[in-house]
Amino acid sequence: MNKPVILITNDDGIHAPGLRTLIRVMRQLGRVIVVAPDKPMSGMGHAVTINSPLRVHKHHEDADYREYSCNGTPADCVKLGQKAILGQKPDLIVSGINHGSNSSVNVIYSGTMAAVIEGALENVPSVGFSLNDYSYHADFSHCEPYIKSIAGNVLQKGLPDFTCLNVNIPAVNGSPVKGIRIVRQAKAFWNEKFEHRKDPHQRDYYWLTGEFVNYDSGEDTDEWALQNNFVSVVPLHFDLTSHPTIPLLRDWETESLN
Amino acid sequence: MNKPVILITNDDGIHAPGLRTLIRVMRQLGRVIVVAPDKPMSGMGHAVTINSPLRVHKHHEDADYREYSCNGTPADCVKLGQKAILGQKPDLIVSGINHGSNSSVNVIYSGTMAAVIEGALENVPSVGFSLNDYSYHADFSHCEPYIKSIAGNVLQKGLPDFTCLNVNIPAVNGSPVKGIRIVRQAKAFWNEKFEHRKDPHQRDYYWLTGEFVNYDSGEDTDEWALQNNFVSVVPLHFDLTSHPTIPLLRDWETESLN
Repeated sequence: MNKPVILITNDDGIHAPGLRTLIRVMRQLGRVIVVAPDKPMSGMGHAVTINSPLRVHKHHEDADYREYSCNGTPADCVKLGQKAILGQKPDLIVSGINHGSNSSVNVIYSGTMAAVIEGALENVPSVGFSLNDYSYHADFSHCEPYIKSIAGNVLQKGLPDFTCLNVNIPAVNGSPVKGIRIVRQAKAFWNEKFEHRKDPHQRDYYWLTGEFVNYDSGEDTDEWALQNNFVSVVPLHFDLTSHPTIPLLRDWETESLN
Repeated sequence: MNKPVILITNDDGIHAPGLRTLIRVMRQLGRVIVVAPDKPMSGMGHAVTINSPLRVHKHHEDADYREYSCNGTPADCVKLGQKAILGQKPDLIVSGINHGSNSSVNVIYSGTMAAVIEGALENVPSVGFSLNDYSYHADFSHCEPYIKSIAGNVLQKGLPDFTCLNVNIPAVNGSPVKGIRIVRQAKAFWNEKFEHRKDPHQRDYYWLTGEFVNYDSGEDTDEWALQNNFVSVVPLHFDLTSHPTIPLLRDWETESLN
């Protein structure tokens, strides 16, 4: 049987320890091609590079493993990896392991998850993995069996068309992770504040800060799972239409106003 | 009656003609505050600025009109406009008029629409306007009555909680726009290609190109509306959960693997 082809990217950049863990696990499951940003790209959302050229640098190549860095965003890496380097659809796209949670609305800002949604747009089974620990030297070792379980299921059983997975893993906290739960995106938000400062030339500037607040008391959410030491798996789609709202706005339709 | 407070941003930058049209229309409806990027930010998706400070430059201030530029992304402009400049929620957030369509999956890559979704996250009624014409000197004049109709409805009737609108307007094409239709996001995608070139130093680089393909034959989509010379209005939410997929993955749940 041919080994599956697995495309890996992330948003913390080619040197990030989380990416290295993900590469190690995926090499146990298939032939791996890494196309990752050459520098950190956190908070890049679904940015794509249209006004400047993309460059690719090859780091390693052998029969079962190729590694490239790219000056683009995570979404660029997925496009370029498939269309310009592989020249075929991979069997699986994985992104991460992100240094920090991408649960609830963080999915919207996340470069890690933009890469995964980019995979879903191509109808390739795609999974983003994030660890709920923002430190560069976080311990990723407990993630491995969960990643293997989820990626193994995806490779064996596939995913529904045009869907992908957002997987968040609790940080090491003294007790073992309790297992995997399939959940929904929580209604949790950032309450942003801007810290106003003066630079040495007395010019104003602002730092974006804020606290994360969970307004969702459901026990079927990604926030609940993480707070209760479970790995959260949220299946995602990219149809942003609020279908229930369509009939409510029907009387806003008009004929020509010109 | 107090005039409504309207926050305006865009992703083509403070000098874009599309923004100027939107400002002119909104000043007929309320007190306006503009916080727009100081340079073009197309294709920035939902990027936010967390690793560098944000600066704001005041261009104009009188009783009913204030205008600022900012070195951040469209999403930053909405956060900063509300939290650091206005210090209150506006009654309406509008973004655009984008120079180019944000119909179907383009919503995912769009800085214009990221600003609007940022508004929805704050539960402020928010609308993005885009013209299906990419030229800098596009004719925006036919947009005005449609923008006034839609923004007037939003100000008068509101929107359901945590929803926003993606409005796309046909380009001038010799026949009048036929009216407004409430529709869903079409299943249409970019088929990307990378153009491979050598620079003068014989180093490889790639330009992202591609063609847009509509796979959706529905007559209830934004693509159908635009192709038939209607203004398309898609109500959006930001819950990316694919709810029908949750029960299908239930047997992927495990207990502890550590």
